[in-house]
Amino acid sequence: MARILVTVMLKPEILDPQGAAVRNALGRLGLTGVNDVRQGKQFVIELDGDLDADRDALLHKLAAELLANPVIEDYRLEVDAQATA
Amino acid sequence: MARILVTVMLKPEILDPQGAAVRNALGRLGLTGVNDVRQGKQFVIELDGDLDADRDALLHKLAAELLANPVIEDYRLEVDAQATA
Repeated sequence: MARILVTVMLKPEILDPQGAAVRNALGRLGLTGVNDVRQGKQFVIELDGDLDADRDALLHKLAAELLANPVIEDYRLEVDAQATA
Repeated sequence: MARILVTVMLKPEILDPQGAAVRNALGRLGLTGVNDVRQGKQFVIELDGDLDADRDALLHKLAAELLANPVIEDYRLEVDAQATA
């Protein structure tokens, strides 16, 4: 089994009002020195078997086009090594 | 500067219809062997200075109660070592 983490974040140049709201809330609740907060999505994908080269390429394509909106978002794909048996 | 990643996921016993929709879409688009997909949120928090014990404790409390809904969600808090200068 392979566990893949796909993290999707707004591109740095895109305003993130949800993140800004969280930043303000953290400050109001007493956390000092908060410079910036960005909010994104994480998908945890469990696959049967290992992630072979074909599935890896397809997963990158789907992450870039389906899980992320390529106009405003970047994605990061990681294999969770602890879960790989 | 410290960069903290707070990842919020639905508890394992809570149904995740968004994740199920993504699982079905990945399968339809040709990715084989997808067992499960769960969708969560990730907050990237940039703090001035190091994360001292007081701020760490407060951040855990705020992550558990503000960023996550403790009735249905779990959170994980990681310090991004690459960003700590």
